[in-house]
Amino acid sequence: MRKRKPLSVALNGPEALFSKMQETGQKIMKLFDIPAYIIGDTCWGSCDLNTHAADMLGADLLFNIGHTISMETIDKKVIMINAYDDVNFDIVVEKYAKDRANQKYKILGIITDSQHLNQLQPSRKILENHGFKTVIGDGKGQLNDGQVFGCEFYPAYDIQKRVDAYIFLGQSMFHSVSIAMSTEKPTFMLDPYFNEFQQVNDKARVMEKKTILSIYKAQEATKIGIIIGLKEGQFSKIKALKFKKSLEVLGKDIQLIALTEITEERLRNFKGIDAYIQVACPRIAIDNHFTKPVLSVPQAEALIKVLKKEPMDDFLKLRHWL
Amino acid sequence: MRKRKPLSVALNGPEALFSKMQETGQKIMKLFDIPAYIIGDTCWGSCDLNTHAADMLGADLLFNIGHTISMETIDKKVIMINAYDDVNFDIVVEKYAKDRANQKYKILGIITDSQHLNQLQPSRKILENHGFKTVIGDGKGQLNDGQVFGCEFYPAYDIQKRVDAYIFLGQSMFHSVSIAMSTEKPTFMLDPYFNEFQQVNDKARVMEKKTILSIYKAQEATKIGIIIGLKEGQFSKIKALKFKKSLEVLGKDIQLIALTEITEERLRNFKGIDAYIQVACPRIAIDNHFTKPVLSVPQAEALIKVLKKEPMDDFLKLRHWL
Repeated sequence: MRKRKPLSVALNGPEALFSKMQETGQKIMKLFDIPAYIIGDTCWGSCDLNTHAADMLGADLLFNIGHTISMETIDKKVIMINAYDDVNFDIVVEKYAKDRANQKYKILGIITDSQHLNQLQPSRKILENHGFKTVIGDGKGQLNDGQVFGCEFYPAYDIQKRVDAYIFLGQSMFHSVSIAMSTEKPTFMLDPYFNEFQQVNDKARVMEKKTILSIYKAQEATKIGIIIGLKEGQFSKIKALKFKKSLEVLGKDIQLIALTEITEERLRNFKGIDAYIQVACPRIAIDNHFTKPVLSVPQAEALIKVLKKEPMDDFLKLRHWL
Repeated sequence: MRKRKPLSVALNGPEALFSKMQETGQKIMKLFDIPAYIIGDTCWGSCDLNTHAADMLGADLLFNIGHTISMETIDKKVIMINAYDDVNFDIVVEKYAKDRANQKYKILGIITDSQHLNQLQPSRKILENHGFKTVIGDGKGQLNDGQVFGCEFYPAYDIQKRVDAYIFLGQSMFHSVSIAMSTEKPTFMLDPYFNEFQQVNDKARVMEKKTILSIYKAQEATKIGIIIGLKEGQFSKIKALKFKKSLEVLGKDIQLIALTEITEERLRNFKGIDAYIQVACPRIAIDNHFTKPVLSVPQAEALIKVLKKEPMDDFLKLRHWL
């Protein structure tokens, strides 16, 4: 800030960090005597930066806090601020390593999400001290080494032939289940808050069945709504129009919908639609509960195969779900 | 559309009209063979057009449906489509006119909201047939003759010295209570669905007390969050910064927040704030329930007066609440 001398700044990040953002905003206002706006809208990740809000506010810099990615800035104006959780994994990693049943997996891929990236090396050391071999997959795109997003898994997917199992560091069922679904390898989630670990492959299978069920339900749909997400990094109009074309050829009646927050509540405003495809974020369709089938991009691709009487294949065994 | 030949269009409007928008979108897609996107985000009025969404989608035209204003287009791209409710007021206006107690009000100001504008003249005729005199106030800015918004009341406010009472045509407690609050004249809401009418001044007084209570509660606040609404027609950064300055001089600790949807749920993410001022839309602070005081612009101005030990005056007796 001393170098760039902004006349005003904006801050955003996940809700868990709002109180830290408030403190930081107040410090900036006092120290530099400029307005610091906290953007209170949702911010799901580096795909959801709220730069339009920062532009409206005329903020010269937008600090995005807590979504560590491989880049430090995006488009000059956005500055990514790392925020690591201060929890460590020593106890739970020790516990995992000492578990007899798990000792059959000799080579472990270690994976985490952004807020625990600083725990990769200490955890690796503990595992190696116990005689395990470890692999940390290379980063790619926005991902750092050993990091996964809810939608992209390169550092996990790309090492699957080299490992016996995955260790996910963090209390995120979604991230760990996604690794299990995209690789089908034994995957363990190590929770540093409760100091407990669990294998998540059964949960992954349940979730996979749910995603398959949605596809079969959507097969019967006459009217399908294709939802384009309006969050900047989730915007995918071309994919939406491609799905529209393919599905119209297959006899479906398509409506196009644009939405910022894709929730059951917003979808309830639409009438007569039998199923939805959303091209925004795969987490929405896989994590949330909807009364109508809501398919993510890989599910929609599987739907098209099913409608063409082709096998749907391993539609989730991908390096990313976009 | 035949003249402008758009390559794609977007449609938005209030949730009650979504099914009509869906039908229209499908007709456009069939007739012109271009994409028609339904914007599914909230759309509270002509202050909330979602042109950013239309821009992201690359839509050449944005049809805003159901928010009749005095203009037919905004910025060339936005086309306002009138949508009138097909209900008529004959029965309820007759009922009002025949009510003995109400016959003491001889000169009536007739007011309505956008979807019943076509009912002004027929209702006026019935009242005049019963011997009343009627006044329909002139439109101004975006308002047509006899129309009010939730935040602007020129055609009601400006005729107050010429009328004994107001007749509001429609089932909207908010609009009718707003007229009563801004003028303090006898105000009647005529509901064409239940064919019942009621005087709303008691309700207006209850609501006014609630708005005053919030101001007194906010007086005790140490930390005040000033919320700038991110909806395009509600964006008011300058006013927010002005309030910040005035309140800091008065010893308050101010935080700046930017939000698209100002809801209790979003505000719950912020910690340690004792009261809020929102400069977006007065309806938010007056209509909705919040656990902390949330003040609209006229309430915030009253708060500043109270803090300066000045009388707060009739802070809602205004032509608009912005």
